[in-house]
Amino acid sequence: MRIDIISVVPELLESPLSHSIMKRARDKGLLEVHVHHLRQWAVNEYGQVDDYQYGGGAGMVMMPEPLANAIETLQKDRTYDEIIYVTPDGPRFDQSTANQLSLKGNLIIICGHYKGIDERIRQHFVTKEISIGDYVLSGGELAAAVIVDAVGRLLPGVLNDETSALMDSFQDNLLAPPVYTRPSDFRGWKVPDILMSGDPLKIADWRYEQAVQRTKDRRPDLHSDQ
Amino acid sequence: MRIDIISVVPELLESPLSHSIMKRARDKGLLEVHVHHLRQWAVNEYGQVDDYQYGGGAGMVMMPEPLANAIETLQKDRTYDEIIYVTPDGPRFDQSTANQLSLKGNLIIICGHYKGIDERIRQHFVTKEISIGDYVLSGGELAAAVIVDAVGRLLPGVLNDETSALMDSFQDNLLAPPVYTRPSDFRGWKVPDILMSGDPLKIADWRYEQAVQRTKDRRPDLHSDQ
Repeated sequence: MRIDIISVVPELLESPLSHSIMKRARDKGLLEVHVHHLRQWAVNEYGQVDDYQYGGGAGMVMMPEPLANAIETLQKDRTYDEIIYVTPDGPRFDQSTANQLSLKGNLIIICGHYKGIDERIRQHFVTKEISIGDYVLSGGELAAAVIVDAVGRLLPGVLNDETSALMDSFQDNLLAPPVYTRPSDFRGWKVPDILMSGDPLKIADWRYEQAVQRTKDRRPDLHSDQ
Repeated sequence: MRIDIISVVPELLESPLSHSIMKRARDKGLLEVHVHHLRQWAVNEYGQVDDYQYGGGAGMVMMPEPLANAIETLQKDRTYDEIIYVTPDGPRFDQSTANQLSLKGNLIIICGHYKGIDERIRQHFVTKEISIGDYVLSGGELAAAVIVDAVGRLLPGVLNDETSALMDSFQDNLLAPPVYTRPSDFRGWKVPDILMSGDPLKIADWRYEQAVQRTKDRRPDLHSDQ
């Protein structure tokens, strides 16, 4: 899988993409991520990529030309399955979208900054808008990093144990059950006896009940989908 | 404001915290962010902070002792308003939570990794759980970065123009209206005439209508709160 990210602050993405699971995915050749500085496609020698918004008001807007040229330059070399714009007013990202995207070949992610990107790019170039949640960030870079991480870890071979991702919260509309590790008694707080019983069937039942109960308590909206 | 982040991959957070708005907030002394490597509180000389989960199954669990010791070490020097654990099964982060957190003094954010942290830390130390969305990440670091960014940009003096954050999506349960910048005609696609009219009242009305319409179309759940 290949992901091309277009950003005005590419250096912000350096460390999230070069450690932990993302490093492993890239080292194994399972995921290629290229971060492109939008200024390469600036409209003048001063590197301009944004301008005041029409109609007035605080905040700059990212100009259509640099973005269109960036997208078209990338498209010359390959076909992209989706051109994604990360924006708080897009449909919310969830595990099912992550699963779907993990089956794609090539993606572009456009990171907005300032007040956002010119609406005409959204109308004529972007094929998919994604919001990682109902809050505003200072730019789309962290949202892009979140998507790359959530999608990248689903690629076969990236996680050490492939059963791991399938047992995660949301994969079956259930939150994960509680987990415990050593010591069995920590300051008087004990691990539930059942987990020490050595009975795999009872443990599986307990975990399922805990997952259902936790989902009912915390996220009844997910549970009603069952 | 001070935020202490406890992580097993602190280097992942380097670039998101040292560029753009976060850099400005820290340079201006408005936001102090300290990232602590959990291994400082490891249970042995091999730096162990995780172990197999009781009851069996794939994925390691972060041990209770290192986390408890990390939290208590930090608490010796100051009082924390919240000890936050970022986890996909927590209540969802939104702009209203970001606003509330931006009024706090000191926060701890615990980043989970692997299968998560021992449940006893959640029960006895954590005061607030936060999920940045319905998807699973390979660790809590990006979630912590998202929270620091969403909260940090709300601190007075961080953004250049303080009206900017108040006009964002979600601040009044409305999505932001579309934005446009130069050129007014881009490949035949034109900026709406009203934005070129120079009439501030008409422009304000149009933006409000667009915001309401966009919210109705894309996020009727927000609109019903009006």
